[in-house]
Amino acid sequence: MEAIQWRGDTLLLLDQTKLPVTEEWLPYTDAYQVASAIRTMVVRGAPAIGVSAAYAYVLAARSFSALDSASFSAQMTQTKAVLAASRPTAVNLFWALDRMERCLMAHGNSPQALSALEREAIAIHREDMEMNRRIGSFGASVVPEGASILTHCNAGALATGGYGTALGVIRAAHAQGKVSMVYADETRPLLQGARLTAYELGKDQIPTTLIADNMAASLMRAGRIQMVVLGCDRMAANGDFANKIGTYSVAVNAHFHGVPFYTALPSSTIDLALSDGGKIPIEERAREEMTHLSDVQTAPLDVQVFNPAFDVTPHQLLTGIITEKGVIYPPFQENLKKHFG
Amino acid sequence: MEAIQWRGDTLLLLDQTKLPVTEEWLPYTDAYQVASAIRTMVVRGAPAIGVSAAYAYVLAARSFSALDSASFSAQMTQTKAVLAASRPTAVNLFWALDRMERCLMAHGNSPQALSALEREAIAIHREDMEMNRRIGSFGASVVPEGASILTHCNAGALATGGYGTALGVIRAAHAQGKVSMVYADETRPLLQGARLTAYELGKDQIPTTLIADNMAASLMRAGRIQMVVLGCDRMAANGDFANKIGTYSVAVNAHFHGVPFYTALPSSTIDLALSDGGKIPIEERAREEMTHLSDVQTAPLDVQVFNPAFDVTPHQLLTGIITEKGVIYPPFQENLKKHFG
Repeated sequence: MEAIQWRGDTLLLLDQTKLPVTEEWLPYTDAYQVASAIRTMVVRGAPAIGVSAAYAYVLAARSFSALDSASFSAQMTQTKAVLAASRPTAVNLFWALDRMERCLMAHGNSPQALSALEREAIAIHREDMEMNRRIGSFGASVVPEGASILTHCNAGALATGGYGTALGVIRAAHAQGKVSMVYADETRPLLQGARLTAYELGKDQIPTTLIADNMAASLMRAGRIQMVVLGCDRMAANGDFANKIGTYSVAVNAHFHGVPFYTALPSSTIDLALSDGGKIPIEERAREEMTHLSDVQTAPLDVQVFNPAFDVTPHQLLTGIITEKGVIYPPFQENLKKHFG
Repeated sequence: MEAIQWRGDTLLLLDQTKLPVTEEWLPYTDAYQVASAIRTMVVRGAPAIGVSAAYAYVLAARSFSALDSASFSAQMTQTKAVLAASRPTAVNLFWALDRMERCLMAHGNSPQALSALEREAIAIHREDMEMNRRIGSFGASVVPEGASILTHCNAGALATGGYGTALGVIRAAHAQGKVSMVYADETRPLLQGARLTAYELGKDQIPTTLIADNMAASLMRAGRIQMVVLGCDRMAANGDFANKIGTYSVAVNAHFHGVPFYTALPSSTIDLALSDGGKIPIEERAREEMTHLSDVQTAPLDVQVFNPAFDVTPHQLLTGIITEKGVIYPPFQENLKKHFG
């Protein structure tokens, strides 16, 4: 299962707005079109956005390679800004773009850097997949035998370079025979849990039960959830983290019911420049995501809407942070700095 | 705003499955069709189901009035059983049917009881509206000045004989100038909050903001919710209560954030025969409610689904119970028995 393919001259993205009904790959040769694909969520998930932006940077460098050096440089700066503005919350996007820009600078900030840039983007992609495998392996070690696991949104192969962060943990634990059921929050309003997680786990024949977000608490009360693992879009230096809206509600419920609560992420998601989660910008999305589903009107057209795409969960509610370097436990500030500072 | 009209020979129900897009009144002259309307949620909400079933009982008595006494009696017993089986969780349904049956018995269990039965159904309807007014008045007294109030599902005029229980509290508090905003949980999977509560409050020009169920916790953390009030489908003797799925998650979050959490209900919703909430039967509904919205497929067709229509909130999470006799505070078992035993 993967959602991003690099074909040397074209970036192919599996259109995640159409899943699970249609599996359609869209071809991109223009960086600005990739920015649009990130904005409209053809591709989504913090690591996948980072990988896609890296390839977009390569496409841009190629398309501007006939320009003189000053124009090339100006165009690349602008391209980076447009890509960076496509979504505000996930930090992997900025991380990947900074890394691509450093590569460009290291190769003379000129069109001569083209092949180095392509190698760098491919490396970002490959490293993300490898990190996911390590995250999966470390995470599987904290999954109880026979666990029913709750996840929220999609932090899977579709959200990353491949394999997944939270779903990577579930995949690895399932391969070890430890997973009896995955409960997938449908994740309103865009239903990434219903559309993507259920689809992705179904393809791997991992037993999955779809629930509405508001059902998770009852399952916890009934003792039917042994662990929560979900993704992360940006983590501050103290372990506070932004993730898909609804994550915080799951965290509060897990805390209340004594259910271990983990986030899984590659280190590119950690933003040590932010002291705490209150400083993470939270994207608000269009009202139509709440008043319509596809062409179906589900609310009065004139109702006010609050539609944040993410929320921030304070580190106090976290049991552990599953990374490619191991599982980080409290005190998070100290341990994050030690491993990733 | 009302959703139930009795026209002497016909029961009119506002089709709540079509709101807010279409306002369509459906006519009923057959009790079994009313049972079907309850099952398919043309009419929903515990008190509204009770009122509708009472009118259906009248329609049945009329349609069987030409039968001999033994056949009439048998048909009425069967009609009552069919209506009672239409939905399992709300107790008002059984309460209303028992009351209608007692009326029939008191009038000789014969077709001669027809006009008494009609008066009884109208009384149930009128009393429900009056109780809602009293609930609203008592409830408004506990609403803080300038409050932003969270509600879940629809416990409004549409869910009752008129005016509403939880939304009756909001209406009364709004009339006193105490309400600055109502946050309406959209209430997956059937979106009664988006489709019905937003519609109903909008008609009354009460300021309303629609949110996904999973957003309420963030609003509480930000200090943007001063009170929660929502309905009830059945309350046990100790104050545990069943209400729309997601209520329990709201209760846990309100508890964690120190937000006062109330349920509003007429005494017909209290089932003192049940010692605690664990004994309330919870309806599970069709998988299609989770995999489709209207004709739009939102999940893989073969995914497993868990779709309970209600959950049970333990009384420990309740601040108070707003009834037509006043606001009941802990100890709930003792105080419920005192007022309603």
